Amino acid sequence: MAKTFSELLEMAKNIEKKKVSVAVAQDEEVLRAVKGAKDLGIADSILVGDADKINEIAANLGMDLSDYEIVDVKDPIEASLKAVSLVHDGEADMYMKGLIDTKDFLRSVLNKEVGLRTGKPLSHVCVFDVEGADKLMFLTDVAFVPYPTLEDKVNIINNTVEICKACGIDNPKVAPLAAVEVVNPKMPETVEAAELTKMNEEGKITGCIVDGPLSLDLAVCPEAAAHKGATGRKIVGDADILLFPNIHAGNITYKAMVHFAKVTNGNMITGTAAPVILTSRSDTYEVKMNSLALAALVADSLKKNA
Amino acid sequence: MAKTFSELLEMAKNIEKKKVSVAVAQDEEVLRAVKGAKDLGIADSILVGDADKINEIAANLGMDLSDYEIVDVKDPIEASLKAVSLVHDGEADMYMKGLIDTKDFLRSVLNKEVGLRTGKPLSHVCVFDVEGADKLMFLTDVAFVPYPTLEDKVNIINNTVEICKACGIDNPKVAPLAAVEVVNPKMPETVEAAELTKMNEEGKITGCIVDGPLSLDLAVCPEAAAHKGATGRKIVGDADILLFPNIHAGNITYKAMVHFAKVTNGNMITGTAAPVILTSRSDTYEVKMNSLALAALVADSLKKNA
Repeated sequence: MAKTFSELLEMAKNIEKKKVSVAVAQDEEVLRAVKGAKDLGIADSILVGDADKINEIAANLGMDLSDYEIVDVKDPIEASLKAVSLVHDGEADMYMKGLIDTKDFLRSVLNKEVGLRTGKPLSHVCVFDVEGADKLMFLTDVAFVPYPTLEDKVNIINNTVEICKACGIDNPKVAPLAAVEVVNPKMPETVEAAELTKMNEEGKITGCIVDGPLSLDLAVCPEAAAHKGATGRKIVGDADILLFPNIHAGNITYKAMVHFAKVTNGNMITGTAAPVILTSRSDTYEVKMNSLALAALVADSLKKNA
Repeated sequence: MAKTFSELLEMAKNIEKKKVSVAVAQDEEVLRAVKGAKDLGIADSILVGDADKINEIAANLGMDLSDYEIVDVKDPIEASLKAVSLVHDGEADMYMKGLIDTKDFLRSVLNKEVGLRTGKPLSHVCVFDVEGADKLMFLTDVAFVPYPTLEDKVNIINNTVEICKACGIDNPKVAPLAAVEVVNPKMPETVEAAELTKMNEEGKITGCIVDGPLSLDLAVCPEAAAHKGATGRKIVGDADILLFPNIHAGNITYKAMVHFAKVTNGNMITGTAAPVILTSRSDTYEVKMNSLALAALVADSLKKNA
């Protein structure tokens, strides 16, 4: 069970090496990251994109491409469709965004012929390794699903529980967050949080322990949970999954943690047939490496359960 | 202009000493805080509550009460009405919660005869001093207004701009936050953020610079703002006021910062005839002291503008 990203990287090194297919790979930061993953033995890669540009960037980086598969497709949309089809056809285990618009990249993920649809709704998970915390935290959804309905939230929980399992965390604790820890009929977020808790008790959401609504302090801080004296709760500052009521709450919190706290993170899209890595240009090398390691573990888990 | 809480405390020491009226003062943490404020020369206090219990707690703390005004009222509701009336009548400059339910305390604030209503809507402001940041950040509303309408948001901005001015920050920059920095018709929060920006440009919101929607990184991190290359924006990582779309986004972010980042904070209710200090039991001594200093500066500013 990974409690930090360094433990998670160790886990990813010790499984069968994976292969990542990169859409529009002519991007310096992305090439650095796939080189890092190769050097650690986590993943080889297939670089789909403009071969001339890929070679030029690699030369500038002093990166030897003789061990890399390169598929020369100049047009970005076509390159993304080729790259995703390699994952679709089982030639690669995971799919990563390069120098292509997020919208176009996601269109390739959702492509009916060559994409990675499973019928399950997609969601995003961001894994945080907070200095001083004794476990990883799985934040969802901070980037993909804007206003999840109750049904969406059930799907998001299911998707994220699978990611936790891939990281060795069985029966994770899920905290549907709100501003308060009690149900307030005037706050639909708290009503839905209680509903999710009930569905979990009734066996309609399985493989995890749901307890909400919870304020963030009661979800992640055992001292705060003890101080406020909440009794009979299943989560006492020890949540694994932080479920946000909507994208604004999720995204602002996520960015506050990145900018104000000492955290390292990794993230991916889930609900797909294979892990999808959608890091942004502003993400550091470390975040991209963490995301590749996370995706490799998830790919391994999907293979074993296939 | 205060850039940190230690500067803010210095400012509060250098103005005319204030007086705080405490509702139901028989609370160890509250007595410690008013003693701190007295020792620093920021505020004297009137302790309204059960005199026997107040004396007993003070004795345990080794606190000499000979210099404190004590008003003996055993019943908590009556004590709060007495304490708020002292502020209403100008005997004290600010009003602080002691050992009384938040609901009952707020009822005394809103009492039509002896309370502190001004006709303006109330809101909450939380001031953050983040290690490494070169300015204070004013978060609103993370605790009081659940789902602000556009009109509520205008009022919240006006209330918070007044607090900034009291801290020596003229023409503060206001960032209406969302998950994204562009208007998306499917996200009403972004539409309202743009509307607030327009109202500011048209002179309907004055004394500040509004620029939204903004994601948190673009609002508070100059490097992120530069990296994402947003041009023509009035806020480039230098926001003073962070306006949250609703209480869930605000409260979860606030608690993430308290629990995961090295921050110190102070907070108060504003929109009232005099500052109202509503710290919670889980707030540290430092937070209570910061809140008293903030309230003293605001009381001073209200007096000068009266």
